[in-house]
Amino acid sequence: MATLLIKGGTVVSATGRTEADVLVDGEQVVALLAPGSQLLGTDVGAGVDQVIDATGKYVIPGGVDAHTHMELPFGGTFASDTFETGTRAAAWGGTTSIIDFAVQTYGQRVEDGLAAWHGKAEGNCAIDYGFHQIIGEVNDASLKAMDGLIDEGVTSFKLFMAYPGVFYSDDAAVLKAMQKSAATGLMTMMHAENGPAIDVLAVQLAEAGKTDPYFHGIARAWQMEEEATHRAIMLANLTGAPLYVVHVSAKQAVAQIATARDNGQNVFGETCPQYLYLSLEDNLGAPGFEGAKWVCSTPLRSKAEEHQDELWKSLRTNDIQMVSTDHCPFCMKDQKELGIGDFRKIPNGIGSVEHRMDLLYQGVVDGRITLERWVEITSTTPARMFGLYGRKGVIAPGADADIVVYDPSGHTSIGYEKTHHMNMDHSAWEGYEIDGHVDTVVSRGKVIVDGGAYLGRKGDGRYLKRGLTQYLV
Amino acid sequence: MATLLIKGGTVVSATGRTEADVLVDGEQVVALLAPGSQLLGTDVGAGVDQVIDATGKYVIPGGVDAHTHMELPFGGTFASDTFETGTRAAAWGGTTSIIDFAVQTYGQRVEDGLAAWHGKAEGNCAIDYGFHQIIGEVNDASLKAMDGLIDEGVTSFKLFMAYPGVFYSDDAAVLKAMQKSAATGLMTMMHAENGPAIDVLAVQLAEAGKTDPYFHGIARAWQMEEEATHRAIMLANLTGAPLYVVHVSAKQAVAQIATARDNGQNVFGETCPQYLYLSLEDNLGAPGFEGAKWVCSTPLRSKAEEHQDELWKSLRTNDIQMVSTDHCPFCMKDQKELGIGDFRKIPNGIGSVEHRMDLLYQGVVDGRITLERWVEITSTTPARMFGLYGRKGVIAPGADADIVVYDPSGHTSIGYEKTHHMNMDHSAWEGYEIDGHVDTVVSRGKVIVDGGAYLGRKGDGRYLKRGLTQYLV
Amino acid sequence: MATLLIKGGTVVSATGRTEADVLVDGEQVVALLAPGSQLLGTDVGAGVDQVIDATGKYVIPGGVDAHTHMELPFGGTFASDTFETGTRAAAWGGTTSIIDFAVQTYGQRVEDGLAAWHGKAEGNCAIDYGFHQIIGEVNDASLKAMDGLIDEGVTSFKLFMAYPGVFYSDDAAVLKAMQKSAATGLMTMMHAENGPAIDVLAVQLAEAGKTDPYFHGIARAWQMEEEATHRAIMLANLTGAPLYVVHVSAKQAVAQIATARDNGQNVFGETCPQYLYLSLEDNLGAPGFEGAKWVCSTPLRSKAEEHQDELWKSLRTNDIQMVSTDHCPFCMKDQKELGIGDFRKIPNGIGSVEHRMDLLYQGVVDGRITLERWVEITSTTPARMFGLYGRKGVIAPGADADIVVYDPSGHTSIGYEKTHHMNMDHSAWEGYEIDGHVDTVVSRGKVIVDGGAYLGRKGDGRYLKRGLTQYLV
Amino acid sequence: MATLLIKGGTVVSATGRTEADVLVDGEQVVALLAPGSQLLGTDVGAGVDQVIDATGKYVIPGGVDAHTHMELPFGGTFASDTFETGTRAAAWGGTTSIIDFAVQTYGQRVEDGLAAWHGKAEGNCAIDYGFHQIIGEVNDASLKAMDGLIDEGVTSFKLFMAYPGVFYSDDAAVLKAMQKSAATGLMTMMHAENGPAIDVLAVQLAEAGKTDPYFHGIARAWQMEEEATHRAIMLANLTGAPLYVVHVSAKQAVAQIATARDNGQNVFGETCPQYLYLSLEDNLGAPGFEGAKWVCSTPLRSKAEEHQDELWKSLRTNDIQMVSTDHCPFCMKDQKELGIGDFRKIPNGIGSVEHRMDLLYQGVVDGRITLERWVEITSTTPARMFGLYGRKGVIAPGADADIVVYDPSGHTSIGYEKTHHMNMDHSAWEGYEIDGHVDTVVSRGKVIVDGGAYLGRKGDGRYLKRGLTQYLV
Repeated sequence: MATLLIKGGTVVSATGRTEADVLVDGEQVVALLAPGSQLLGTDVGAGVDQVIDATGKYVIPGGVDAHTHMELPFGGTFASDTFETGTRAAAWGGTTSIIDFAVQTYGQRVEDGLAAWHGKAEGNCAIDYGFHQIIGEVNDASLKAMDGLIDEGVTSFKLFMAYPGVFYSDDAAVLKAMQKSAATGLMTMMHAENGPAIDVLAVQLAEAGKTDPYFHGIARAWQMEEEATHRAIMLANLTGAPLYVVHVSAKQAVAQIATARDNGQNVFGETCPQYLYLSLEDNLGAPGFEGAKWVCSTPLRSKAEEHQDELWKSLRTNDIQMVSTDHCPFCMKDQKELGIGDFRKIPNGIGSVEHRMDLLYQGVVDGRITLERWVEITSTTPARMFGLYGRKGVIAPGADADIVVYDPSGHTSIGYEKTHHMNMDHSAWEGYEIDGHVDTVVSRGKVIVDGGAYLGRKGDGRYLKRGLTQYLV
Repeated sequence: MATLLIKGGTVVSATGRTEADVLVDGEQVVALLAPGSQLLGTDVGAGVDQVIDATGKYVIPGGVDAHTHMELPFGGTFASDTFETGTRAAAWGGTTSIIDFAVQTYGQRVEDGLAAWHGKAEGNCAIDYGFHQIIGEVNDASLKAMDGLIDEGVTSFKLFMAYPGVFYSDDAAVLKAMQKSAATGLMTMMHAENGPAIDVLAVQLAEAGKTDPYFHGIARAWQMEEEATHRAIMLANLTGAPLYVVHVSAKQAVAQIATARDNGQNVFGETCPQYLYLSLEDNLGAPGFEGAKWVCSTPLRSKAEEHQDELWKSLRTNDIQMVSTDHCPFCMKDQKELGIGDFRKIPNGIGSVEHRMDLLYQGVVDGRITLERWVEITSTTPARMFGLYGRKGVIAPGADADIVVYDPSGHTSIGYEKTHHMNMDHSAWEGYEIDGHVDTVVSRGKVIVDGGAYLGRKGDGRYLKRGLTQYLV
Repeated sequence: MATLLIKGGTVVSATGRTEADVLVDGEQVVALLAPGSQLLGTDVGAGVDQVIDATGKYVIPGGVDAHTHMELPFGGTFASDTFETGTRAAAWGGTTSIIDFAVQTYGQRVEDGLAAWHGKAEGNCAIDYGFHQIIGEVNDASLKAMDGLIDEGVTSFKLFMAYPGVFYSDDAAVLKAMQKSAATGLMTMMHAENGPAIDVLAVQLAEAGKTDPYFHGIARAWQMEEEATHRAIMLANLTGAPLYVVHVSAKQAVAQIATARDNGQNVFGETCPQYLYLSLEDNLGAPGFEGAKWVCSTPLRSKAEEHQDELWKSLRTNDIQMVSTDHCPFCMKDQKELGIGDFRKIPNGIGSVEHRMDLLYQGVVDGRITLERWVEITSTTPARMFGLYGRKGVIAPGADADIVVYDPSGHTSIGYEKTHHMNMDHSAWEGYEIDGHVDTVVSRGKVIVDGGAYLGRKGDGRYLKRGLTQYLV
Repeated sequence: MATLLIKGGTVVSATGRTEADVLVDGEQVVALLAPGSQLLGTDVGAGVDQVIDATGKYVIPGGVDAHTHMELPFGGTFASDTFETGTRAAAWGGTTSIIDFAVQTYGQRVEDGLAAWHGKAEGNCAIDYGFHQIIGEVNDASLKAMDGLIDEGVTSFKLFMAYPGVFYSDDAAVLKAMQKSAATGLMTMMHAENGPAIDVLAVQLAEAGKTDPYFHGIARAWQMEEEATHRAIMLANLTGAPLYVVHVSAKQAVAQIATARDNGQNVFGETCPQYLYLSLEDNLGAPGFEGAKWVCSTPLRSKAEEHQDELWKSLRTNDIQMVSTDHCPFCMKDQKELGIGDFRKIPNGIGSVEHRMDLLYQGVVDGRITLERWVEITSTTPARMFGLYGRKGVIAPGADADIVVYDPSGHTSIGYEKTHHMNMDHSAWEGYEIDGHVDTVVSRGKVIVDGGAYLGRKGDGRYLKRGLTQYLV
């Protein structure tokens, strides 16, 4: 097997920085070495097959995006990225693992849902991938099937308190699933919005002729996210289930999570780049139908209410533990346009899998988070949270050689014409400028992005059987 | 220089575990290697001078005890451990760095205080040591002297809101010193108890004939710790100073720190083993004068009020970031006995520097904290908090080879007759049983404890010039 | 019309005490007079038809019990008090007004439900009575009917977040009804327990053979009350509806209400005597089936968790505003016994309407609340909360002459054999001793209880058309 | 003695409204009568000496201003209102009682301080007056003197955590005084600002040339009020003393009080009209030296930080219980002007005693508070808080006939040229327009303001011996 030495760089971990060379043998890191790679008088670098000079650059564990939806069926269409296009775009952006969501729909067997997602992904991915399991119907069969998920390496499942008639679980269902979570160690992931109440508001708005994308954000009021977050926390408190709240956008929901954590409960939260940068006023409220680009749930929040500052703060204080994308891309044409004249019919989702590492790095440049925290929230914690740590999320002997060389003196201009590799007809991040650059991406020892070129191929990525969470408090 | 290979063990960091061999060349770690130490076909271990077999054991960064008081003058006597005896005891227990407190007393120059502590420590220590600076009198000269501390590698100073007439700073003084802290980056450390109010209570108790050690705990009521903690937080809020609250013992003080942190303020807290295990009722309230063994400030808190559970919880939730000892030993004879008949005259302090790593490891065994969190709160965070990370607090190429091999299948019985190396005539921890054992201690590449023997010598330890804190949120 | 003078007593209001004589002319108070009833040289008392000497006693506005369920159909049986027996018992205990709940059941018209309750009450009551309206099915018709309630003098409606399949409203229904509340000023009253989740627990317990009354309390965990309380608060926050949470028993639910109130939201809470005195361990956990006497929802809470102290405290701090009984009596024989072998089949309810004034007065004697607060939480605030103030809840010219003479040097022994006038075969309050006594009860100018005799008759009480709440913050 | 009938008005109490006539005989209310004053067939009004027609108007208990400083020596000058001019202005504005502060200065006997204030007030007041006692030096003698205060009718004392070298008490002193408060029932009143820290900031600002009135507000940062408020609360918690925090202006201080109250502690707060209407930016920051008009401590707070809304909210939620003026007037000429070029030398104080009732009534008009709450926070609660209830704060038989007829259809334009009766050369409230008017003011049965004329005379007012607080929770 081939050997690779990444030398001269600054290895950044969740706790600090080390000047060290990284030696890769085959698919794994085999050594971290003092700079110069002189080991007991031997120049280790002399014998390796490939050397990457990382002088002046950061050497970080590849990004782990724990929330993507490739090819998700939603609202009568499908998320526009396949596992092939989506994972390749992720690789371009320095993400070397994703965890996507297999779906059990209502009336379906869990096993069949999982098998279907394996079918979509297998042989198509540019980077490694794992699965969470969406439980669309909690019943005796699906509860029983959950016992088998751990053996499949699927150690987390997701419920929805929103979308009645589609993915919705009522509180009885949530309770039963959480009891299973507590008994098995499976992580409960929750889409925490009060769907039944939101749908009343949405109907009322639509009937009042308020059909623009902006009203998607009005219907999904922060109170409905805060409420569902609290409800999920109390059901978790009752059952003892560990709880991970996805795509937190409201500062009041953050406060609920912070309180639960201060009380010692195993409650975790994820936010997404869109909630850190985009807003109800500026984006959902864009003229005409353009706001549809940013229709996602939970929705973008009001800039005036200062949710963004609170979310950034929560990333510093660890009240929110990590950042995923909730990547769920739709084109404007034929997809988002389904909702012209009725915001309720706009497919929900934004494509960000390519830009997460960059967008968060900008937070380092802007003084929002430290360099170490960047690594922690984009890679180390996602790996720990979902049972991948050791293989992913860290640069250490024995770890998969998923490594990104990031250049703090580089620059990245995000835009549809420039850097866009996701299968969308627009960029949700048009015009964002990043004071840094993903130079090189290594996936299990193979250089898949370098010198502005994609060097990998479809099928490089393998399925990740995950262990139980390694992040309990 | 000699080389050393620690092989077969599980390297534990603050974020996870790695099966890896650790190669030391001279004083520093030069490589982490995949188990077997086979590097590009070469057996790295073959050429090393010394091999330690860590199979089945944990390999952790040496402990960093950020709060000790060797030879501290207090209450008409001196803490009974010299730098020689105290650091040797620390080494026995797996601690390879201490940060002690140089003292500027009232009327003295800061520079002279620091020089005096250098004089006490230099050439006498078994392990590396650094200094915080106690500012006993905030005035123009001492404020000016604080500017020079950073060049001396002293990047933190401590104030006392207690002990009027001795170390006490009033709020005007605290404010001025915190302004200096904010301007320079020096960490403000605070003994947060309302001394003037406590002294009123203490006089009243003594005059009422309530003179037993137990009343030390009554006089120093939790309200007075909570209050001073809040006051320090607000003065830090006003000035922008980073604040580190020492020896937090009251759950209500923890709550104040948690609130400040949720608000995004750079406020940190340390607790000590005594507050996690010992109590007002069981220890301070021991029959006769025996309670004097556990007279320290802040005092042991009421078991009935459940402070211990809250402190353990705060260690999980990171509301409290680390554990130091506040090691300040006094013998019963001639020292603690000064306070027979008047608790106010009992020298304040407990000796724990030898047992911190073990006592906290028991928290892992008892399910209180994770193995990773143990490393984090005893080594990684103390190093980051006080500007030592990179050299200390981590096992990585370039780091000082301060390493402990810890055996989870070993056992340690703590007691004066058995394992006691501190210069005291009793153990404050008599009878504590630990389900683990410090097997080997390496300090800057030198094996100083192994096979139940101390192999180092006086003067092994060097002064640590510290950088600014690496732990801001 | 007849005149009545109550002289020599201490008139107690919500804010203080006044030595004053009270002159009643016909059904109303016409004057408060300085003691001695000398007015401009005239002895007012000389001309009155009847004089009551209240020397040494408290003269208070008659009690207003805002939560009773006479003849309520529940669990296949009916609450055992008719309007005749229940209101007579209330009168014995110093309560001169009740507000009962008219029920719209699923599938029924609101108007018909209200008419049915008028039918049960009219001509049968010993004291004045009003109605809240239970909305058992929120739909277009019931929402429209709510507009008409105000003209009927029914200015509050109640929803249930518990009892799926019976009274349960889901969140969509709650939202719509609250919008109506916000638009009209109708008070939203809420039974705040997460019924769907509770029912899962109850089934699991029953299937596990845990069928004793005690498990009623286990199934209805405090988390489920806290959660639903928070949910109701957030839906009220979203809609702007005023919210009144009935029968609060968990200290954590109190905390949710307190937080909402500190935030300025119009949220109110009621507790009941059973939650202040009785407990899960002592009562629900009584040997054999005896615990069934105290099966009510929300359930009695754990004494060990100290809910009682928190509830008393909340009555002092006005975090809880008032005390009602949730009077819903069932006999053991043929009624409670339906649940032998399955706690789920025990009719929910306790009979207390006779004892509320006494039980709360004991809180004055015990130093839990002030004398003024007693009047406030049993009479003045209930009247203000539900639009009766002016007529009820105060002794002032123009007010209905609903007056109780309460003797603080009297004594009341509560027990089935002694003082029991409710239509039950047992007393839930057996053995309670009260250091005070209801001496005289006047209802709209008529003395209906005096000298240990009931002097009124069926039909004395009239229907109270209520105005909108007078208690918004 | 003369009789007076106020007829046709709406009597407003803290809990509600009653259409009633009020009969006064001599100095006291002797009856509340149903409108029409027909009592048992007799026209009560026929025989009275004087009738006031209050048709369409509110009849309220006279205002109680619990915080004034007539003739206070401060900063080398004296508050410009004497007891004569100040109480007359109060009367013009509908305030019929004040509680002023007798001062024990450092080195003085408490008894002498109190006697001096009696000397200033006796025979000079237009309305009734009581005293709080400022304890300027806590020592054995003053602590002993406090025992005697209750017999003098002085049931509250005030300490200062600000003004070192003048009124300042350190925490030891505060603790001792609070112990006395807990033992005797004397209310502890607290000026809660961290004076020693504020003075450091003030010196720094002045030395930096920042000498305008605006910097008075900068030096007295909200953190210093919040901190001292919390400190006072914890010392009260420790000792069991009831605590009343004067002139609360920072929303963060309100939050501290709210938390203490939710915890059941007897902590109370007062705010003042200036904090509800005026601001740092608009007033203290007025051009040139004009801001000096509004220099008071605690200072006006930043409008941008939204303290005003929070204070109004706290008046609704009863987190703040009442409104006083902290009336402490100084003329610009010769007084405020002492601080030209150095804000530290500007005498602290604003004159508002004349306008409190109007300014708060405007809050009713603006929908900030209810009509009942207006009466409660300006009269009923002040009376209860400071042991005057029964005589003051309520219209009831036996109460002093301190009554205001307030016309909601009247109008009041506040301004120096128009309505100003305080002894100042400017109005701090110039230009405020009030949608209501004080028509008639009755003080102990005597009409002292009516028809736009002052009808009373110097010496009408008598000293009020007060009882202990009637407002504990």
